[in-house]
Amino acid sequence: MTDQRRPSAGVARRSETSRRAVLTAAFELAAEVGYAKLSIEGIAARAGVGKQTIYRWWPSKGAVLFDAFLMFTTGEPGEGGGGEGGGESVEEAALPDTGDIEADLKTVMFATVDELNDPRYDRTMRALSIEIAHDADLAALYAERLNRPMRELKKRRLRAAQEAGQLAADLDLDVAVDLLWSPLLVRWLHREGPLTHEYAAALVETALGGMRP
Amino acid sequence: MTDQRRPSAGVARRSETSRRAVLTAAFELAAEVGYAKLSIEGIAARAGVGKQTIYRWWPSKGAVLFDAFLMFTTGEPGEGGGGEGGGESVEEAALPDTGDIEADLKTVMFATVDELNDPRYDRTMRALSIEIAHDADLAALYAERLNRPMRELKKRRLRAAQEAGQLAADLDLDVAVDLLWSPLLVRWLHREGPLTHEYAAALVETALGGMRP
Repeated sequence: MTDQRRPSAGVARRSETSRRAVLTAAFELAAEVGYAKLSIEGIAARAGVGKQTIYRWWPSKGAVLFDAFLMFTTGEPGEGGGGEGGGESVEEAALPDTGDIEADLKTVMFATVDELNDPRYDRTMRALSIEIAHDADLAALYAERLNRPMRELKKRRLRAAQEAGQLAADLDLDVAVDLLWSPLLVRWLHREGPLTHEYAAALVETALGGMRP
Repeated sequence: MTDQRRPSAGVARRSETSRRAVLTAAFELAAEVGYAKLSIEGIAARAGVGKQTIYRWWPSKGAVLFDAFLMFTTGEPGEGGGGEGGGESVEEAALPDTGDIEADLKTVMFATVDELNDPRYDRTMRALSIEIAHDADLAALYAERLNRPMRELKKRRLRAAQEAGQLAADLDLDVAVDLLWSPLLVRWLHREGPLTHEYAAALVETALGGMRP
């Protein structure tokens, strides 16, 4: 039985290595050539795997890139193999919960600011955002694969704060997520001004406290 | 004196007609062919004016398109001729002020929702948004010509509410504008969900009242 498990563990390890190589290659290539010129062939060549290895796990280049984003964002490449495409890593990921919703939101939003200010992430995310804006099918894929799981993570933390009495019981958590994160995204995408921790902190404080006196 | 004023008024009227024709042509063409293929030649041909007429008033196709957006948004083509490029119409425009900031914000945001749901506006604005996202120079032009004047209009209304004691005295008005409008823009640009008056109303109410209990 031990003999049977060892090779299987070796396969899983190799799968995880390949998977991580594919996602890293996709992320880097998207930054270099843009989404339109990104190809499964190019990703396979850079990752040093066969095209069939990629097609076994992902249906399209968009699906690969979304998982690459999930890996970059959550720091996890998924559980390797299996084709669930990073779903597990999001299931396991969570926003920090120190019991102080304001402090935790600032921690997370500061990390988002740092990500958007990272040139490598900036180019890749900008390429993807542009494609999403004019390709309705890709937008649907993005909504399902990347936006929804990330949104669920955020809502889970907000729900815990709601249950702890730190947020209004009747707060619409989708509206809350949008209020907090959309201004960051617009300021970044339209380059409307510097994206700083100070700005993120002001967003969190104003969204939590409201605009009224 | 009357004889001298009549031809001059005629010229002004013709200028205004040409100006409106150019802006309408730019707006429609952008929706049809996208920003990248939009050209001064194409706009001139559709508007029935010479290229020189356009260059007399605007330095670039981006500048024409921004004024076309201002006309669409404020309903004013500017004061005709003169080359100020629609600046006057924004100066004169104002957000509604009935004395009730919540009701007035809803009125304005409902109008924004209706605009974004208008297929003609959707295509043109999407073309422009995409170009802004990957062209830093155009982003700077957008920030100066379209975003800043529109933002000033919004801040003026918020400042009046602040002075009337309806908004916090220490509220950062730029943060407030972002909290209110950015979620609409992101939901539209990334097609994250239906853009409805109900959603806009929830945004206004949550931004004003805050997320806390």
